[in-house]
Amino acid sequence: MSLGSFMLFSAPKKEEKKEEYDIIIIGGGPAGLTAGLYAGRYGLSALIVTQTLGGLVAEASVVENYPGFESITGTELVERFQKQTLKWGAQISIAEEVLEIRKREDGKFEIVSDRDTYIARTVILATGTKHKKLNVPGEKELDGKGVSYCATCDAPFFKDKTVAVIGGGNTAVMDALYLGSICRKIYLVHRRDKLRAEKALADRLGELKNLEIVWNHIVDKIEGTDKVEKLILKNKVTGALKELEVDGVFVDIGILPNNELAKKMGIKLGSEGYIEVDRHMNTNIEGIYAAGDITGNVGQIAVAVGEGTIAATSAFEYIQRKYGV
Amino acid sequence: MSLGSFMLFSAPKKEEKKEEYDIIIIGGGPAGLTAGLYAGRYGLSALIVTQTLGGLVAEASVVENYPGFESITGTELVERFQKQTLKWGAQISIAEEVLEIRKREDGKFEIVSDRDTYIARTVILATGTKHKKLNVPGEKELDGKGVSYCATCDAPFFKDKTVAVIGGGNTAVMDALYLGSICRKIYLVHRRDKLRAEKALADRLGELKNLEIVWNHIVDKIEGTDKVEKLILKNKVTGALKELEVDGVFVDIGILPNNELAKKMGIKLGSEGYIEVDRHMNTNIEGIYAAGDITGNVGQIAVAVGEGTIAATSAFEYIQRKYGV
Repeated sequence: MSLGSFMLFSAPKKEEKKEEYDIIIIGGGPAGLTAGLYAGRYGLSALIVTQTLGGLVAEASVVENYPGFESITGTELVERFQKQTLKWGAQISIAEEVLEIRKREDGKFEIVSDRDTYIARTVILATGTKHKKLNVPGEKELDGKGVSYCATCDAPFFKDKTVAVIGGGNTAVMDALYLGSICRKIYLVHRRDKLRAEKALADRLGELKNLEIVWNHIVDKIEGTDKVEKLILKNKVTGALKELEVDGVFVDIGILPNNELAKKMGIKLGSEGYIEVDRHMNTNIEGIYAAGDITGNVGQIAVAVGEGTIAATSAFEYIQRKYGV
Repeated sequence: MSLGSFMLFSAPKKEEKKEEYDIIIIGGGPAGLTAGLYAGRYGLSALIVTQTLGGLVAEASVVENYPGFESITGTELVERFQKQTLKWGAQISIAEEVLEIRKREDGKFEIVSDRDTYIARTVILATGTKHKKLNVPGEKELDGKGVSYCATCDAPFFKDKTVAVIGGGNTAVMDALYLGSICRKIYLVHRRDKLRAEKALADRLGELKNLEIVWNHIVDKIEGTDKVEKLILKNKVTGALKELEVDGVFVDIGILPNNELAKKMGIKLGSEGYIEVDRHMNTNIEGIYAAGDITGNVGQIAVAVGEGTIAATSAFEYIQRKYGV
């Protein structure tokens, strides 16, 4: 990635122990970077602590659905976000992992990372999600070259082509329905003999003339040189191998929220592990906000920047009430 | 405005009465345009009906807080949004006013405008808000030239300058506190002898050394040639006039949601007249969604595009369940 080395940023120095910030933002994807931008504009001191810059966006070969840019690489969009956030005075520390957040008796928070310990008046959790992987040969090599984890993002690239959707839940079925209206031919590959998706959704699959469901198969391997060409499937019952020629593979076997920090400090999670927030991005702990994919809303850049804006605004209003400015 | 004539767009023709769309979006600001973009990407037919393009953004001389653009004029940003939305197949009809929405027995909606009648499976209300105006000489002429209705948007342009905030509610006080940390000198001009804002907020004003509260005064006139130079105030008790030399005037006397259509069809509004939505942008009427400033969340472009994305996604999922795709 050409996102620049973290040496470029005004990362907190080791000797300045327990530096105090108005807001510490955990996560450097679109939600975290936008929260930093707004924090800076509100005149608050803000530090973004993140392992990587850009979150899942940095992985996107092309972004066409963020309003304002007809087509931009994920890397370039992240660079623009980052530059704008730094311009407004927020600090960004990359390659730093937050290990724990503790609430102190005075209402402030102690943030312990693998590099330092900070004090913050408020915390915004923008820790995002990760896609469950198939963990098969070819998956990593062809990621972004036909292997996708997001039909909403990438379907338009497969117009009139042949794709396979892997999975049997609601997302897999919705993606199959959506791709069915765009692609020439689609396969839905499921490891069981019955879909887990809601009946109302699954029933709709019957209307697709260009759909073939491949039951009881798991992916054994994804093949292709520069792009996906072939899928090797394995019959879970007989063990027999089978080939499918495809241009794309949509992996819809689930998403996992990065909720370890939240869980550790008792932040309320919903049934699927996402952080529960209200419309102001408040969590159940006063002074802690969440924004972006970790809140379980539509996982799009546009939504993340919106939630980052709201979270920073809520933090600002809280600080204004509690501490003055 | 150089936003192009509506003749350029594939607006529905008079003779095609009762054309049916998957989604009709009312309002052409960032929320409506983004909803159109996503509707198009989901393969849905969408029509945006709006009186003007861009909503309040089109009025902004400079936008610095929409992630991705360090500095862009409101007009240019709207043009980019519009182009991208049209690219994905949504239609935009400008200078058209929706007069009424009726729910039919089959669950579809009839949208009656001053030009035509349409049928839609779903409706997204992105009708926005309007700022209450002072309605005094100079206000309109100097709008964007020192007269502002949004401190979050414009405060940074007044660093180390002198400004007046007009109003006495929470927003006026918050803006005064915020501007107080940025400007050299600020006046808070209020028509009564007591603030309407919460005490916790109002108390903070005492900490500002550069603040002067002007009680019992209303604005009589705003003066300036190319930009705001002077404020003429009138004492509500004595009738005496008074001058203030200022570089900017922030008018914080309230915001009004454009909720007439929603009200007419029985959509549930909150106490301040904004449309009540859940985190999926559902209103109380199935198949009708709301997005952007009309929902009463933080009135920022980033938030509007997020809500537009969510509303279109919810409409898409509803259509997928109810009608298939």
